[in-house]
Amino acid sequence: MGGDAAPRPEVSGAVAAVREAALEVVLVGDRARLEDELARVGARGERGVTIEHAAEVVTMDDHPGEVFRKKRASSLRIATELVQAGRAHALVSAGNSGAILAHALFVLGRLPGVERPAIATAFPAPHGAFTLCDVGANVDVRPTMLAQFALLGAAYDRVVHGRPRPRVGLLANGSEPGKGTGLTRAAHALLTAAAAAPDAAFTFAGHVEGSDLWRGVVDVVATDGFTGNVVLKVCEGVADALFGLVRAELAGAPAGPGAGRPAVGAQVATVRRRLGGALAAPALRSLEKRIDFAETGGALLAGVDGVVIIAHGRSDTTAMKNAVKLAHRFAAAGLPARLAASLGAFGATGATGSTGSPGPAGTTPPPPPGGGTGA
Amino acid sequence: MGGDAAPRPEVSGAVAAVREAALEVVLVGDRARLEDELARVGARGERGVTIEHAAEVVTMDDHPGEVFRKKRASSLRIATELVQAGRAHALVSAGNSGAILAHALFVLGRLPGVERPAIATAFPAPHGAFTLCDVGANVDVRPTMLAQFALLGAAYDRVVHGRPRPRVGLLANGSEPGKGTGLTRAAHALLTAAAAAPDAAFTFAGHVEGSDLWRGVVDVVATDGFTGNVVLKVCEGVADALFGLVRAELAGAPAGPGAGRPAVGAQVATVRRRLGGALAAPALRSLEKRIDFAETGGALLAGVDGVVIIAHGRSDTTAMKNAVKLAHRFAAAGLPARLAASLGAFGATGATGSTGSPGPAGTTPPPPPGGGTGA
Repeated sequence: MGGDAAPRPEVSGAVAAVREAALEVVLVGDRARLEDELARVGARGERGVTIEHAAEVVTMDDHPGEVFRKKRASSLRIATELVQAGRAHALVSAGNSGAILAHALFVLGRLPGVERPAIATAFPAPHGAFTLCDVGANVDVRPTMLAQFALLGAAYDRVVHGRPRPRVGLLANGSEPGKGTGLTRAAHALLTAAAAAPDAAFTFAGHVEGSDLWRGVVDVVATDGFTGNVVLKVCEGVADALFGLVRAELAGAPAGPGAGRPAVGAQVATVRRRLGGALAAPALRSLEKRIDFAETGGALLAGVDGVVIIAHGRSDTTAMKNAVKLAHRFAAAGLPARLAASLGAFGATGATGSTGSPGPAGTTPPPPPGGGTGA
Repeated sequence: MGGDAAPRPEVSGAVAAVREAALEVVLVGDRARLEDELARVGARGERGVTIEHAAEVVTMDDHPGEVFRKKRASSLRIATELVQAGRAHALVSAGNSGAILAHALFVLGRLPGVERPAIATAFPAPHGAFTLCDVGANVDVRPTMLAQFALLGAAYDRVVHGRPRPRVGLLANGSEPGKGTGLTRAAHALLTAAAAAPDAAFTFAGHVEGSDLWRGVVDVVATDGFTGNVVLKVCEGVADALFGLVRAELAGAPAGPGAGRPAVGAQVATVRRRLGGALAAPALRSLEKRIDFAETGGALLAGVDGVVIIAHGRSDTTAMKNAVKLAHRFAAAGLPARLAASLGAFGATGATGSTGSPGPAGTTPPPPPGGGTGA
């Protein structure tokens, strides 16, 4: 119920996922509205779709820590509890991501050895998609956390991209010795040691810079949630801007101020490029769809004891469908157990689940409910 | 002499600038090699071009602080001293940027009130170019430094884009209250106060996120040099990748594995998109040139007592020409004095030139030469 257009794309996306894949969906929210939406897409009584009523909704304005205490009948709370109780195998939400993080922490708890859960997501690139982790859960981090984000990202990458030993890099301002911050250099040392272990399920490529992401140099890029969020949004912004510029250019943008009546040569050039633009339009649309960040279907909240997918607030039917299918893949792959196993190899660095506040940035979390945390 | 292909593009670019604009150039480096390059571009004895011999070269592998002490006859050292002595109005180099920073600090010194010089540069965007500062000089910063980067960026923007009161934003992981790091929130408070001054030559838009940069929301974006460098390189990487993908798509990329002989409809679509690609190619090339980050001609090292332009190591003739012309514009605009005046309004926040090490990240600078620093 928390997405920008909820529950419309949630319901239509869930129904589409049920029809495409061997999975079942529990819709959690206002029963009457969910039934209306099911009827709208011709899916009343659809096999594999059930409804769990929730009287309250977490909004984008709700404070993540407070809303957990105050709205105990929210759709987010009830859906998370379904996962904790084993009545669902994964949670998908396009709502308030800080609140999703808080609910996952307090209801599902962290995996053993995880200091802070992080958000991992895939980016399309010419040489194959790469994984970025963390893209926004933790803005102020310690070296052990950053090193864990690398391992969480690698675990995501193994499931989503099927690479058994992904190449992991640490995002920095250059790959030469001496580059990076105190934070990244300390994480560099931790990861160098972890990658040397005989059973390490990744290789470590050291510091990588922003342009390396698109060159197929690494499969997984680890960074703090502040930088990762900036990278995510800069990519979206650059891609949107470039597609707009390409379209304008192909449509024959008007000449700059001061240009008089164009010469015949210029007119020919304009006709030529407009024609080219019209012919190229389907190719561009196909490309835009292929690199659409929403197409990947959402990000994984990695490091909590359960599968939690954070979808974009503006998700449409396709994005929600892909988010549900992605959640199904992670659950089928037994992700939390595999993550815990891969982090076990890293426990020697001193990272434990017992340090620091488990809350999302900017929140003052309530004490976790008894027995609820997995740490 | 420090660029990747030096001194070839430096000489051809300088000659091109002298021929296009009312300026003079002093080429600093190995006299014989510079004369050879001048002869190669038919510019031996060119009016407005002189040579100052330098026997040594700073390489990309040289440590910024050490090389200042060790290579006293380097082209970078001698060129910087020409500016300090008033025999040149600006320095342009495509060499080791850490060494450029170190030489500028130790020879020219900081402007009064500047804690750390920062690198400002312009980015092309659909709604007009924006300025990003810092893109790499300082990776670990304090709030007063970050606030100063905003003012240095605004000063750059006033000269380069002619906006009398640029709108300034602080890069963060979201614009909602509570977003940002401890660092950005503290700088937010400093800039809110500075923008309220009656003579403030900028307006403050608060936190902005990565996607806002391309939406014309602000003219200047301030960030630390770590994040700024990542943004700069991610933009280059995304743009390169997208142009490659657009080209492949327009050329009719082969169908994925498992695709059999294409149906007639698919063949028509392929012909159509290949034809569109051929017709669109000139438009794409024109666009690619227009958004080429090298076309802006280099970045300004803002906050030192002199005009210093850092060109990309891979600069070609056009990029070097534009860098020289940009240096000329800043010198003609009296940039250092204007910067000092705009920072004066900010002195009340307690920022002074006396705190911390003035060295570039990762260096152990020697003590500044007597009287050499402007702080």
